[in-house]
Amino acid sequence: MDKGYFISFEGMDGSGKSTQINELKCYLEEKGFEVILTREPGGTDIGEQIRRIILDPDNSEMTHITEAMLYAASRAQHIEEVILPAVASGKIVICDRFVDSSVAYQGFGRGITECVNAINAYAVQDCMPDITFLLKVKPQIGSERIKHREKDRIELEASEFHQAVFDGYERLEAAFPERIVGIDATRSIGEIQQEIVMHVDRLTGQRK
Amino acid sequence: MDKGYFISFEGMDGSGKSTQINELKCYLEEKGFEVILTREPGGTDIGEQIRRIILDPDNSEMTHITEAMLYAASRAQHIEEVILPAVASGKIVICDRFVDSSVAYQGFGRGITECVNAINAYAVQDCMPDITFLLKVKPQIGSERIKHREKDRIELEASEFHQAVFDGYERLEAAFPERIVGIDATRSIGEIQQEIVMHVDRLTGQRK
Repeated sequence: MDKGYFISFEGMDGSGKSTQINELKCYLEEKGFEVILTREPGGTDIGEQIRRIILDPDNSEMTHITEAMLYAASRAQHIEEVILPAVASGKIVICDRFVDSSVAYQGFGRGITECVNAINAYAVQDCMPDITFLLKVKPQIGSERIKHREKDRIELEASEFHQAVFDGYERLEAAFPERIVGIDATRSIGEIQQEIVMHVDRLTGQRK
Repeated sequence: MDKGYFISFEGMDGSGKSTQINELKCYLEEKGFEVILTREPGGTDIGEQIRRIILDPDNSEMTHITEAMLYAASRAQHIEEVILPAVASGKIVICDRFVDSSVAYQGFGRGITECVNAINAYAVQDCMPDITFLLKVKPQIGSERIKHREKDRIELEASEFHQAVFDGYERLEAAFPERIVGIDATRSIGEIQQEIVMHVDRLTGQRK
């Protein structure tokens, strides 16, 4: 059987990841692919337990290292239990956030990039996405879009934190141009989808 | 104010750590010290949430890397929130298990020592115990002593795992003779206590 693909979506909260992920899933299923939607932190039973600790606003005392380790713990479980088996069996895995989120939020946002890179080397090993879509909206626009949503512990951080995350994503995009595709996410849903589909068609070798 | 002390206890389940920890606490309090008893995984509110995930027998799918990261996450929180402030304010912290447990159980037991050492370097930083008591009983004796206890996920592991942990502890004792004091824990409670107290008196500079 042919190997499947691993696609991740990245970006600030409010960048429209969920919408685009669902659009892409429908598109790929119509093409005949079996698609797994998943997310981080979480994506497994153990990962969802870890997610609850990470995002609980009551856990405001959490240290930066603890936070980074919990994300990495969830990721290691997710890779072994979900991503690797699905890709090995020919499926397409679409993941809402992956290791780039840890580098952007915990690394650049919290200021501990060396630690985040080192521990994620153990969590991720060789399991990197075939392609990563970075949906780019400025933090102010993202937070405006989610202002009526109930916020988790990370979303509740100050605007300086979210600006550092945004800058971190820009640096990741510059550092890994062969994997990370930056997408102007201020455009219409249809325009964004069209751009994503073009890249995914190229990846899967399927031309429209 | 004078800095306090950080004392850890290590050993297989059933080695009598809890008994000796409580004896030592009483002894030190009678000497006028303020003593904090704590434990890993756990010791903080966030750490106890992590502990429940780690030890839950239902989480049998947990990968070795995830397990190691969760212990390290709990430890980083514990150090910053409890151990460092207590020692800085002159207290004596007695901790039931610390980083040596991760090296013995996750490192040697699971066979991922390099990963465990690397991630714990970030979790622990400079916060190592002043002295570590390793209560030594063979795994068979330890498991015999706890056979009527309800087992957690780690205690439920096969005897080969516990033998690897025991061997790991032996290697740690040999590697860090200036910090780790190996104690023959097959003797009477009183004999063991006497030996521990002798070392603790030397550490705190208090002679009987």
